[in-house]
Amino acid sequence: MPTPGGLFGGVFARGRVDTSDRAWLQAMLDTEAGLARALEAAGLAAPGAGAAVTGAARADAFDLAWLGQQAALTGNPVPALARELTRMVPPGAAAAVHKGATSQDIIDTAAMLLARQAMATVAADLATAAAAVAGLAAGHRDTLMIGRTLLQQAVPVTFGLVAAGWLTGLDEARTALARVAASRLAVQFGGAAGTLAALDAAGPEVAAALAAELGLAVPTLPWHTDRLRVIEIGAACAGVTGVLSKIARDVTLLAQSEVGEVHERGGAGRGGSSAMPHKHNPVAAIAVLGCTRQVPGLLATLVSSAEQEHQRAAGAWHAEWAPLSDVLRLTGSAASWAVDMLTGLAADPARMRANLDAAGGFPLAEHVAALLGPELGRPAAHDLVAQASAWAAANGRPLRDGLLGSPEAGRLAAAGITPEQVDRALDPAGYLGAAADFVDAALAAHGAAEPLG
Amino acid sequence: MPTPGGLFGGVFARGRVDTSDRAWLQAMLDTEAGLARALEAAGLAAPGAGAAVTGAARADAFDLAWLGQQAALTGNPVPALARELTRMVPPGAAAAVHKGATSQDIIDTAAMLLARQAMATVAADLATAAAAVAGLAAGHRDTLMIGRTLLQQAVPVTFGLVAAGWLTGLDEARTALARVAASRLAVQFGGAAGTLAALDAAGPEVAAALAAELGLAVPTLPWHTDRLRVIEIGAACAGVTGVLSKIARDVTLLAQSEVGEVHERGGAGRGGSSAMPHKHNPVAAIAVLGCTRQVPGLLATLVSSAEQEHQRAAGAWHAEWAPLSDVLRLTGSAASWAVDMLTGLAADPARMRANLDAAGGFPLAEHVAALLGPELGRPAAHDLVAQASAWAAANGRPLRDGLLGSPEAGRLAAAGITPEQVDRALDPAGYLGAAADFVDAALAAHGAAEPLG
Amino acid sequence: MPTPGGLFGGVFARGRVDTSDRAWLQAMLDTEAGLARALEAAGLAAPGAGAAVTGAARADAFDLAWLGQQAALTGNPVPALARELTRMVPPGAAAAVHKGATSQDIIDTAAMLLARQAMATVAADLATAAAAVAGLAAGHRDTLMIGRTLLQQAVPVTFGLVAAGWLTGLDEARTALARVAASRLAVQFGGAAGTLAALDAAGPEVAAALAAELGLAVPTLPWHTDRLRVIEIGAACAGVTGVLSKIARDVTLLAQSEVGEVHERGGAGRGGSSAMPHKHNPVAAIAVLGCTRQVPGLLATLVSSAEQEHQRAAGAWHAEWAPLSDVLRLTGSAASWAVDMLTGLAADPARMRANLDAAGGFPLAEHVAALLGPELGRPAAHDLVAQASAWAAANGRPLRDGLLGSPEAGRLAAAGITPEQVDRALDPAGYLGAAADFVDAALAAHGAAEPLG
Amino acid sequence: MPTPGGLFGGVFARGRVDTSDRAWLQAMLDTEAGLARALEAAGLAAPGAGAAVTGAARADAFDLAWLGQQAALTGNPVPALARELTRMVPPGAAAAVHKGATSQDIIDTAAMLLARQAMATVAADLATAAAAVAGLAAGHRDTLMIGRTLLQQAVPVTFGLVAAGWLTGLDEARTALARVAASRLAVQFGGAAGTLAALDAAGPEVAAALAAELGLAVPTLPWHTDRLRVIEIGAACAGVTGVLSKIARDVTLLAQSEVGEVHERGGAGRGGSSAMPHKHNPVAAIAVLGCTRQVPGLLATLVSSAEQEHQRAAGAWHAEWAPLSDVLRLTGSAASWAVDMLTGLAADPARMRANLDAAGGFPLAEHVAALLGPELGRPAAHDLVAQASAWAAANGRPLRDGLLGSPEAGRLAAAGITPEQVDRALDPAGYLGAAADFVDAALAAHGAAEPLG
Repeated sequence: MPTPGGLFGGVFARGRVDTSDRAWLQAMLDTEAGLARALEAAGLAAPGAGAAVTGAARADAFDLAWLGQQAALTGNPVPALARELTRMVPPGAAAAVHKGATSQDIIDTAAMLLARQAMATVAADLATAAAAVAGLAAGHRDTLMIGRTLLQQAVPVTFGLVAAGWLTGLDEARTALARVAASRLAVQFGGAAGTLAALDAAGPEVAAALAAELGLAVPTLPWHTDRLRVIEIGAACAGVTGVLSKIARDVTLLAQSEVGEVHERGGAGRGGSSAMPHKHNPVAAIAVLGCTRQVPGLLATLVSSAEQEHQRAAGAWHAEWAPLSDVLRLTGSAASWAVDMLTGLAADPARMRANLDAAGGFPLAEHVAALLGPELGRPAAHDLVAQASAWAAANGRPLRDGLLGSPEAGRLAAAGITPEQVDRALDPAGYLGAAADFVDAALAAHGAAEPLG
Repeated sequence: MPTPGGLFGGVFARGRVDTSDRAWLQAMLDTEAGLARALEAAGLAAPGAGAAVTGAARADAFDLAWLGQQAALTGNPVPALARELTRMVPPGAAAAVHKGATSQDIIDTAAMLLARQAMATVAADLATAAAAVAGLAAGHRDTLMIGRTLLQQAVPVTFGLVAAGWLTGLDEARTALARVAASRLAVQFGGAAGTLAALDAAGPEVAAALAAELGLAVPTLPWHTDRLRVIEIGAACAGVTGVLSKIARDVTLLAQSEVGEVHERGGAGRGGSSAMPHKHNPVAAIAVLGCTRQVPGLLATLVSSAEQEHQRAAGAWHAEWAPLSDVLRLTGSAASWAVDMLTGLAADPARMRANLDAAGGFPLAEHVAALLGPELGRPAAHDLVAQASAWAAANGRPLRDGLLGSPEAGRLAAAGITPEQVDRALDPAGYLGAAADFVDAALAAHGAAEPLG
Repeated sequence: MPTPGGLFGGVFARGRVDTSDRAWLQAMLDTEAGLARALEAAGLAAPGAGAAVTGAARADAFDLAWLGQQAALTGNPVPALARELTRMVPPGAAAAVHKGATSQDIIDTAAMLLARQAMATVAADLATAAAAVAGLAAGHRDTLMIGRTLLQQAVPVTFGLVAAGWLTGLDEARTALARVAASRLAVQFGGAAGTLAALDAAGPEVAAALAAELGLAVPTLPWHTDRLRVIEIGAACAGVTGVLSKIARDVTLLAQSEVGEVHERGGAGRGGSSAMPHKHNPVAAIAVLGCTRQVPGLLATLVSSAEQEHQRAAGAWHAEWAPLSDVLRLTGSAASWAVDMLTGLAADPARMRANLDAAGGFPLAEHVAALLGPELGRPAAHDLVAQASAWAAANGRPLRDGLLGSPEAGRLAAAGITPEQVDRALDPAGYLGAAADFVDAALAAHGAAEPLG
Repeated sequence: MPTPGGLFGGVFARGRVDTSDRAWLQAMLDTEAGLARALEAAGLAAPGAGAAVTGAARADAFDLAWLGQQAALTGNPVPALARELTRMVPPGAAAAVHKGATSQDIIDTAAMLLARQAMATVAADLATAAAAVAGLAAGHRDTLMIGRTLLQQAVPVTFGLVAAGWLTGLDEARTALARVAASRLAVQFGGAAGTLAALDAAGPEVAAALAAELGLAVPTLPWHTDRLRVIEIGAACAGVTGVLSKIARDVTLLAQSEVGEVHERGGAGRGGSSAMPHKHNPVAAIAVLGCTRQVPGLLATLVSSAEQEHQRAAGAWHAEWAPLSDVLRLTGSAASWAVDMLTGLAADPARMRANLDAAGGFPLAEHVAALLGPELGRPAAHDLVAQASAWAAANGRPLRDGLLGSPEAGRLAAAGITPEQVDRALDPAGYLGAAADFVDAALAAHGAAEPLG
């Protein structure tokens, strides 16, 4: 439903990915034009035919709605498009229009062109987002916060580590996307049933020339009913949206009123609620989730559409067009929103520290037990800490009081544990394990990631 | 992606279901207008405010693209829409615009209005399609054809029985759709967090008045994050497309060149292939499948979107809009194509009979075995028929020759089975069981199905 | 993967829904036994054959693994099962085994029997859960808490209203489930291609008798490739899991360490973490979500499987068995966990109040603006409150200070607004709109909901 | 639902992929054992502890059902498993059990081990299947058959080309699967919240040692809530099943009674129908489709599960286990069936030729038009052929009669076209374009594909 410029386009068709009807039409025309040039290069079209068809192949010159109506006669808009394009070129060039091609050649190749534009745009946005996140990871390498598992406070982490996890996801999803874009976007050119019979022996030469004209790969053979490419494009996008969904979910949770550890800066008018002036909605994160949550079902459609009959499918092929467009658009919109969300993300180290401190030291219980282990033996150490924790919790006091100001204190002293040792064990900065190393590793991997060409 | 009037609209947005941006905008405006009238009726808006807002609430008066851009500030287009609408009414009516409402009230209620239009349209198309199928079932009640299981010829059926199966599916899916449309399309009106606090004690009264204005049901309480209704709408549509997909699949299979038992009459220019003049593509059936195959994944998105947080979801709600629109549109398009497919379906009884006869009598082997059972005992009967079948198959002869002209013939004669008895057992018309009864039952059930109001 | 008694069964196969291999086998045997009795009743089997087959039809008497291997020869286990069952009954009853039936008759009917058991179990669990929630709604009808939209604190609500929303969802999902269970679970009996030819004219009579034996409905005609029933069962379950997912999501959010408004009481050992003794994980809510999140994709498979060819599908039918089992199992497990989650849910009104108070009065800004509107005009009132809010927020003070202790105070006084009026407007209990009415309405609707037979 | 050895395992859990509960348990134990050895290597466990734990870590020594029950207390079986394992080793080794780990470390790493086994098995089966298909492509390089688009006969192709298309799909899907298996199966080891705090500074060293012990990659940092790997595994499997579904769909269609161009040889008892002795069901192809059609929905669940909160997800992680297992199992079963289907596939060139000839030459109409084009001009040539086709079709005669024995014959003669030229144009072997080149290219690419290590 959503289109750029449409009522919902600001949310679901944000950014520069263009899968509009006009973009589809132009991509089809670009394919027809590339074919005419390829035919001319192969000596199968009159000199000048390529240029003539290319000159005529401008989307604005066509009546899109009329083409759409004509599509109902054959199930796709290409036959009408080819007729119109033929009519619009000089007689000498007419024979070069659509020669040797079938409708699916044009639509599949156009889809590859759209996918290429979309994937490049997404990759660029992911790179921008990753750069912002790398800044957060580096800047907050040692910023303490409470880690949360199953939505419960667990043990200390750093915001740098959280950001490092986001960064790795972004970089790895971008790498996977770039690999598919570089290796799997291939021209489709097989004619009526994949033999290119109408071009006699010249088919492969024209196919190669067409691929060169359009900057797409030459497949081993036409892939009319081998839809692995479509699945791979969709899956690479789903990898991107999967990664973005995790980050956006974290942002919405960290931005909760009761947590307040991050907020989106956004711009003027962003995230406000006329009815609730105190609210500061994380609009970008919400929009990311609004986009990403639509992708799994669409990917399922693409995968189930791979069951295609014989040399052209009766329905399964047609069922791909919209979900493929939608996946590209939604991935593009989510990536665009993610740039916004992450370049504008403000962390609040004081609030992070406050939330950590409010946990009363309990997240360090494990650490204290480890301190006591060598003296008391692991089971007894665990037992002592558990009882101290229970006493403290029951009395609404921090763990330190449970350890040093409860009936357990004597056992601690008897084991030769000093209050200073307890305080050290209760210092969250002392219980971060490899957090900083992991941040450094993620930043190093990010630095080594291939830049975008 | 596809919109009516768009490049792919002829295939995927056929018929009268309208989920375009303009339709959404008008439905939102209709909701705002209904609210103003409800407020006035409740004494919460100035006299005339309802009419003033209603007069201003015309989609054409709004700049849809601008609203779409504004939506990016808050995540939905309603705040900007409400501001514009307020600006467009006389000062005295301004206070009635959007009073007590939150954005979700407007969007959810608008979605219900769109769903109502869509479901009524689909139900009408299903009724038309069912009438056509009832005609096929009645007209071909006794038209013999071969039944096929696992895509292999099995035992005789009638085309009337095939059509009766389609008919029952159509009628039952329509009944389910009509039930949801009649009982589950409810107004949404809860204000910022579902308490209607801004209206003080008058909330429920205004909600009821709004529901009456719009012809929707009054829910027990606002359903902002109880999305069962959305699932039920989507599931009822999926029931429709599931049934249509089965019929369309049958049509494509029966229309295969090698089978040729049905074809779509279509209109001029329909289904032809410029490259392959002998082809007669079942365009309507293919288009049905192109639509229906997109629905399962979209329904999955609607179901997974039901996991909505607190009093308004951060993303899951937004993720519903497009899939709900798409499900309604695709169900509408599939139903519209189904009318075309089924009102124009031509059956070829001669070809059906020829295909049945070409099966060489083997589909009747079970019947012959049943004939012999009382004389020979079931195991021996099965054995004899199996050997006769094997002999006939090995010699490229029909089953009759295997029974009467092979080494098994003597055993048959010894059992007192006459050639006339064998021929009777090999007559497919004599082995149809309850086929005609089932056709009659389906037609009776169809006649008893509630007409559309 | 998960089975009761298996490694993951405690989480994903909890409760009394049984879709194990043994349950499937017994349901198939029950169908065969019912058929033998129906045949005897119709005079098509020897006296006593029904009882003989029924006596032999005990799952424990069969080698399940061997049947599974045999299934690979034909694609399903029924042919081997029917042979074994035939072998196990006295000669006189052998002819009654599987007479007239095809494999699909047995498997589809068995699936209906499993669905019936599952749906009844789920409905009972939903009723128990709803009763607990009704208790929460009634008991907390006036318990104040902050409402949250987009995961941000918004305006006051009551916990009773939250529970009332859960209650309505539970009741409506149960109603929909019960409707499908009561009306759409039909016997399947059509023979090789849906004509029941092997029973001659007696097919419908036997089908009706079989339905009566098993307590299932008699369909208009065999529904081998009309899969609407399967979609409806799956969709009703998805409605249940959709509703449960919303409740469980709320529980996990409300149980967050930083929120702490509810917790699961659970039993001994529940929800603890050996590594983190202070944690109290909402295990039941997590398990509910672990179950519910698997359902949308499975439902998509059921819907896309409805595209079935001719008289028996080549793959699409087979693809239904596991997802249907899984949907029933997961819905059952989720419902069982939901009983646990909701009967053991402890609300903390003090913490709710504390979180509300910590919001600094900002959630009441809208209410204050409404108070000022009549005096200042709506725009000026909004403006004043916005500036007071901004001042308070910037100074880390509650809204009251922004209104009464900031530069805006003078404007308030000039408008004749007293501090007492401001305090009344800032009282969350005074800004609950219809919350209590909605709770009462939900409880009334719950009381009126049909009890389970 | 289906398990090897279960009632449906013969169909849906065929082959050597093992995702049974026992396999899961052993993989978890292998991870715990590897961890003990890694800890010992790092000097964090007593000498001999690694061997002691490894010796105890045998699945058969554990009570799987009891572990499953315990899982309900915490949401997963690992805590109970770790306790039991600790109990089973000598006291000196007890401290090495599960040290530093969290439950998710064990389950995620176990999942990687299962995925590795599954992907290797699938890759081997795909290689076997591809070898068989390469044989078909080479052996039928020039075997004529009719190409079919939209389930209608279109233009000639060769069976070699059909097989070449299958081959390319198989090889490319295998390549993608092998790439993921080689690069993306990484150990998970992060402790309670991803810092490995319990191991102090030694965490990364132990992680690397654990990875080495298990033969898995070392990730940049723990990936508890970065689920891109899971999506990539699922997507690679979905690529495999997408390719297999296309092949199996073709086999079922080509094996139709009315088409008869291929059949599955299968083994004794395979594909027969006791009720219909003449049937020869393509059981392997049907089983492939029964498996592959379940994958899209499961992949959707995996993708939507990537939205995981903070440092451990509350439900989304749990929701991955079964669908990941199921995707691996179903891909394995489909690949195993595909080996069976393709190594046993018998093509019938005579039937292919007969079906082609029965098309009456109409599939060559395009070729005839191309012959006439230079003489008559393209439009006139098309027009003449169209009229000849129409005449022939109307009179039930082949296209040759329409060209040479109808009113159009004079126009042909006038254009200097001889009957010999017409016959040459009507020879399907002369209208195959690049079919043979494409077969050769696919075979060459197959030969160049990396062998499995």
